[in-house]
Amino acid sequence: MTTTDVPAQRTTPVGHGSMPRKEDERFLRGHGRYVDDVVLPGMLHGAVLRSPHAHARIVSLDTSAAQAHPKVRAVITGQTLQGLNLAWMPTLSHDVQAVLATDKVRFQGQEVAFVVAEDRYAARDALELIDVEYEPLAPVVDARRALDSDAPVIRDDLEGRTDNRIFDWETGDRAATDGVFADADVVATQDMIYPRVHPAPMETCGAVADMDPVTGKLTIWTTTQAPHAHRTLYALVAGLPEHKIRVISPDIGGGFGNKVGIYPGYVCAIVASIVTGKPVKWVEDRSENLMSTSFARDYHMHGEIAATSDGTILGVRVKVLADHGAFNGTAQPSKFPAGFFGVFSGSYDLRAAHCEVTGVYTNKAPGGVAYACSFRITEAVYLVERMVDVLAHELGMDPAELRMRNLLRPEQFPYRSSTGWEYDSGDYPRALRAALDLAHYDELRDEQQRRRERGELMGIGVSFFTEAVGAGPRSHMDIMGLGMADGAELRVHPTGKAVLRLSVQTQGQGHETTFAQIVAEELGIPPEDIDVVHGDTDQTPYGLGTYGSRSTPVSGAATAVVARKVRERARLVASAMLEVDPGDLEWEKGRFFVKGDPTSGTTIAEIAMAAHSDLELPEGVEGHLDAETVYNPPNLTYPFGAYVCVVDVDPDTAQVTVRDFVAVDDCGVRINPMIVEGQIHGGLADGIGMALMQVMAFDSDGNHLGGSFMDYLLPTTMECPSWRLGQTVTPSPHHPIGAKGVGESATVGSPAAVVNAVVDALKPYGVRHVDMPMTPAVVWRAMQGRPLRTDMAIT
Amino acid sequence: MTTTDVPAQRTTPVGHGSMPRKEDERFLRGHGRYVDDVVLPGMLHGAVLRSPHAHARIVSLDTSAAQAHPKVRAVITGQTLQGLNLAWMPTLSHDVQAVLATDKVRFQGQEVAFVVAEDRYAARDALELIDVEYEPLAPVVDARRALDSDAPVIRDDLEGRTDNRIFDWETGDRAATDGVFADADVVATQDMIYPRVHPAPMETCGAVADMDPVTGKLTIWTTTQAPHAHRTLYALVAGLPEHKIRVISPDIGGGFGNKVGIYPGYVCAIVASIVTGKPVKWVEDRSENLMSTSFARDYHMHGEIAATSDGTILGVRVKVLADHGAFNGTAQPSKFPAGFFGVFSGSYDLRAAHCEVTGVYTNKAPGGVAYACSFRITEAVYLVERMVDVLAHELGMDPAELRMRNLLRPEQFPYRSSTGWEYDSGDYPRALRAALDLAHYDELRDEQQRRRERGELMGIGVSFFTEAVGAGPRSHMDIMGLGMADGAELRVHPTGKAVLRLSVQTQGQGHETTFAQIVAEELGIPPEDIDVVHGDTDQTPYGLGTYGSRSTPVSGAATAVVARKVRERARLVASAMLEVDPGDLEWEKGRFFVKGDPTSGTTIAEIAMAAHSDLELPEGVEGHLDAETVYNPPNLTYPFGAYVCVVDVDPDTAQVTVRDFVAVDDCGVRINPMIVEGQIHGGLADGIGMALMQVMAFDSDGNHLGGSFMDYLLPTTMECPSWRLGQTVTPSPHHPIGAKGVGESATVGSPAAVVNAVVDALKPYGVRHVDMPMTPAVVWRAMQGRPLRTDMAIT
Repeated sequence: MTTTDVPAQRTTPVGHGSMPRKEDERFLRGHGRYVDDVVLPGMLHGAVLRSPHAHARIVSLDTSAAQAHPKVRAVITGQTLQGLNLAWMPTLSHDVQAVLATDKVRFQGQEVAFVVAEDRYAARDALELIDVEYEPLAPVVDARRALDSDAPVIRDDLEGRTDNRIFDWETGDRAATDGVFADADVVATQDMIYPRVHPAPMETCGAVADMDPVTGKLTIWTTTQAPHAHRTLYALVAGLPEHKIRVISPDIGGGFGNKVGIYPGYVCAIVASIVTGKPVKWVEDRSENLMSTSFARDYHMHGEIAATSDGTILGVRVKVLADHGAFNGTAQPSKFPAGFFGVFSGSYDLRAAHCEVTGVYTNKAPGGVAYACSFRITEAVYLVERMVDVLAHELGMDPAELRMRNLLRPEQFPYRSSTGWEYDSGDYPRALRAALDLAHYDELRDEQQRRRERGELMGIGVSFFTEAVGAGPRSHMDIMGLGMADGAELRVHPTGKAVLRLSVQTQGQGHETTFAQIVAEELGIPPEDIDVVHGDTDQTPYGLGTYGSRSTPVSGAATAVVARKVRERARLVASAMLEVDPGDLEWEKGRFFVKGDPTSGTTIAEIAMAAHSDLELPEGVEGHLDAETVYNPPNLTYPFGAYVCVVDVDPDTAQVTVRDFVAVDDCGVRINPMIVEGQIHGGLADGIGMALMQVMAFDSDGNHLGGSFMDYLLPTTMECPSWRLGQTVTPSPHHPIGAKGVGESATVGSPAAVVNAVVDALKPYGVRHVDMPMTPAVVWRAMQGRPLRTDMAIT
Repeated sequence: MTTTDVPAQRTTPVGHGSMPRKEDERFLRGHGRYVDDVVLPGMLHGAVLRSPHAHARIVSLDTSAAQAHPKVRAVITGQTLQGLNLAWMPTLSHDVQAVLATDKVRFQGQEVAFVVAEDRYAARDALELIDVEYEPLAPVVDARRALDSDAPVIRDDLEGRTDNRIFDWETGDRAATDGVFADADVVATQDMIYPRVHPAPMETCGAVADMDPVTGKLTIWTTTQAPHAHRTLYALVAGLPEHKIRVISPDIGGGFGNKVGIYPGYVCAIVASIVTGKPVKWVEDRSENLMSTSFARDYHMHGEIAATSDGTILGVRVKVLADHGAFNGTAQPSKFPAGFFGVFSGSYDLRAAHCEVTGVYTNKAPGGVAYACSFRITEAVYLVERMVDVLAHELGMDPAELRMRNLLRPEQFPYRSSTGWEYDSGDYPRALRAALDLAHYDELRDEQQRRRERGELMGIGVSFFTEAVGAGPRSHMDIMGLGMADGAELRVHPTGKAVLRLSVQTQGQGHETTFAQIVAEELGIPPEDIDVVHGDTDQTPYGLGTYGSRSTPVSGAATAVVARKVRERARLVASAMLEVDPGDLEWEKGRFFVKGDPTSGTTIAEIAMAAHSDLELPEGVEGHLDAETVYNPPNLTYPFGAYVCVVDVDPDTAQVTVRDFVAVDDCGVRINPMIVEGQIHGGLADGIGMALMQVMAFDSDGNHLGGSFMDYLLPTTMECPSWRLGQTVTPSPHHPIGAKGVGESATVGSPAAVVNAVVDALKPYGVRHVDMPMTPAVVWRAMQGRPLRTDMAIT
């Protein structure tokens, strides 16, 4: 275990190591190029008319006044789209979603019409000229109400549907689980909510669609995390030939899952470009992003945990009611809550586990987004880590000790969980010990004791998490049946500079740096001599994009594999250059030399020039120096970590202050430790935000109560302590460079630590659980013994 | 042999066959996008100051008035470039060329300064404000004068150089050749000139250079036939990192070799963009293109041919004085006249051949361009085909009969020529017979006899040619040491549409159609579902570009190979889909089925979707459906053909009219016969133009006399007969689809046919040879027994 108190390296490593992000050069100087920076000659601007009702029938829709606006070029309605067979589009989870409403509106903010005008202002003005007559219907806002037999049927567009139940999935062995529960000395149960939250990326969603009427080629610049999948989906949805679609995902100001799916605005921009023959830009404003793009979480969870009286955990039993909003899985590339199923049994050596999840429609914006959670892993980890604390409470044991006693042991890996997922590698006790050491856990408990005696509310929360990331064959996280294999292509130019083309792209994670470093490590070419190209379907191989922490597990692996292919090709060229057998060559970073003669040899740059020259190559060896590969991960990777959070709760105001936070992450091999730490910092802040302030609330009429950052609160540095990070390194055995992915770890692991800490702080009040977000009002009520459901307005 | 009087197919073939060019959709509707169509925000405009002298020392250069022009942003001189170590650049033939003159000017039109202004007009105006003081020097205009011991030394910039001789190359066996000449019954000799001509593409040269000061990335849109080679050269010449250079060759309005090399204007545009921080456009006007971009030919040739008295040709002996202008090989990617060496012994079964070529500097614009000639093949074919006619004249034999007697026989292939080149395949007598039949040769001779008796001057010219094209290992046509291997990359999208990325690009030859057809033939995907991407180094694999008829021989081969790789990958996927052994699958265009059960099976589109899906693939089979390859041709391809030209010469005005032209080409397998015929039509017109009207003339002071299309004449439909085409098909044995390339055939083969016809027509006047271009003045003088050297002004 090493802790990283040393400052990041400032010299450029040729390979792995901390170095500043190459992309900072443009980002920090304001030269990033986002969708809204795309300006094309003759470009028009689109704006979306949205429903003011959560549930209403559309009686009539009159666009004549808008169409008469002198600057308006087109008004597109559901009727227009019906004529093109585009009024509905498939979602990533095999549901359909209205592009523009034709029959009913099903959530407040739903898209009803699209105005195209010469400028953005005229387009917005003209929205107000559209006259829609609505017949309001009773909305379903509470997921539990959705299953009532007399609940209004939200999705009456779906043939034969008479209720709001989307699915009932289950996993695990019910009989075995019931068996261990029957044998248990102790069973702890707890209901809890993971509130509906929103990824709220810095950049909202948008698109510029440009259909060339002569060539029939559609170019769409769009805020997508999955450009290739979008291309295929546009081909399938809109009937455009796939080779005539170019999806460009330029610089993206944060994704967090919000930008995986296809939103109605994208389709409207495409249709508008076809209709007008001009490029059309559509960019959401902040309220639109918060109101109508995909939400996350919204899980009502019932957890049970069984143990012996000495604190040996035997099993977990879970029931979940999942609120998916009006359309299912707009941005969740999975039919069922795969990630939840994968890790709801936690990091522990259980005998059995069972889980049921019921999904329902409600009159809210579509949920199910993969918001920094690897598909419901955040919910699962939160649940099980809360349950362990509840059990500790029940047993009167220290929660850290209880965890240490039950964590999987290193010799158990690879570990097949009770639901059949194979955790690839880990040394869990080592990570927990490292976190406790770094936090000085025992001293903290002593301090807590002293403070309690003074009437101060200090809490210490521990959490341990295992993630399953790097979507692969076991994850069932395909996008509408498309597989998880991702391509990489590496070309070394004659002068020894290289370009790497990837299917995944970055929303700010530093891919241009990290992936260049992987190539540098394998080939000895300095990272600054390697460009990483991504986010443009015309320039990159196919793949499913960046989500679920899959970039390093999947495309990082593809990059290492393709670089090694290039190295082996270079070996053959070097063998022709040096006139020795390929087997007689030895590789050392950046050069081949003849075995036993380290002074001989030739560099990768010399090999590159020779491979492009008239050099006669052996039979079967192709010239140039490049390779491509498609990497299909054999398994998921399983990053893990142990977090310790220390909070103070003000007894007078119930204000929670996070005083200290220790995070020991094990994401396998770290390519650029500085970037890894940045990812963890961001995720921790995110977790504190969810624990303490974030919730997307609705009133009982389905009115959205979080349409701006005044209402939907995000954490700032003011709420964050100075993070203290440690690490252990347990390489993934099946990943070519042993990396596991880290993009979501801290978001997954931190909320439970914060909640456990707050509940721990409130122990003197007999509090056993507090639901997120733990605002002062919520905490205050908990202190008064009045718990509060947080999926409703906090009033 | 088939003749193609049937109209081209109008339905789209899935594979080879005539179909209209896909690119016509944009070209015919005015939607092509050429360099001059590129408009970038803030773009500046450059203009070149050119030397009025053919040879002069620069005494002083004052740019202050130009710099004071309110719209001028920068004035770049040779001094500026010297500071950047860019005043000189390497040429493709290992010489150096001045980017902007520093010491002397060496041809009229040479680049002296570059003005950058806010618009093109201001830039041109400011040129006149630059004050250059020249000290005129005696120019060397005649190549023969260049070798005089007292001739001014043109290239005194080259260290130690005291004369104007560039090289003396020779090939063949001198002793053996002298031997067969000593044994010969007849030796015919003839001096002849292949005049200096200019490719004169419809679009002049130009570039838009855009250096991004933040990312350090240079994007240059430029009229180049070799974008990847240009990228490497810019890296080597300008010291820019190769991965930070993107060369885009958009639609190109004709190349013909004129756009292979790097011109000073390109480098100036790059430097100007770096200096100003803005995009800079530079586009030549017509006069600049005609005066200063690379010329072709300019060969003074002495030919000797030895034969027995019964007309068996024994050997050929050739001496050439090659005028390369002031800088050698600006656009000729070869150190020596490779193509000339390859085929100067013609299509005949000789015992020995020998050739010497001496290259000299003169005070003319740089020559040596590969103008539709596969590197001096045009000159070689012209020489040998004129010599055969001179020999026929000497022997009193019919020239067609003499050829038939001496042509290589089919059983001699592959045929190793007396200079060691291996002609790959051919049935020459069949092609000649086909041409004579199609022309009704015997009847023509009868008609000629009748007409001569009436005092009419009818001439019948025959020519036979063998080209060596598709630059490969034997051609020595590298670009500064870069090899001839070209990459191809093919991706089939999930929905079965495909994109093919090629290193070569089109200047109007229809690549987007032809190459799509090659893929269609191999995979059964309709050509309209296949996009061909080229001309952008960021989007395509490496390769040396389009020249020397190499697209189909090299990249066509690469395309077939990569398509077959994809097919074999599809076989593995299909085997997983159908759960049978790959070996049990049979392929029929577009689908695999289980052997013996043609009703079973799966289409390529279904396979593509499966390859991108969750389908479990066998060990070692990568997902997706794509492949890449690098094709290094094992040999050149050798297209050939027989042409018959019928002319009438007006005895009163000496005006030559081409009455009929029969062309039987054998370019191996024809992928799109309609495109092949279009290429042949163009080349025939080109050949008639060179034979009858084209010459780049200079006066004795080195003043250029062909600076506009008023002076430099190009053929129009008025000068062309209705071409009559035939074909034979002798596939190339080493090319995957048996194609040979056809882009230059007619340009190579036709001039000799026209000249032979005119000389034949003038037989009553005792004329034995007439040099091109056979303008009325030239022909008239020949009729008067006064031959005229044509490298000088025709006055």
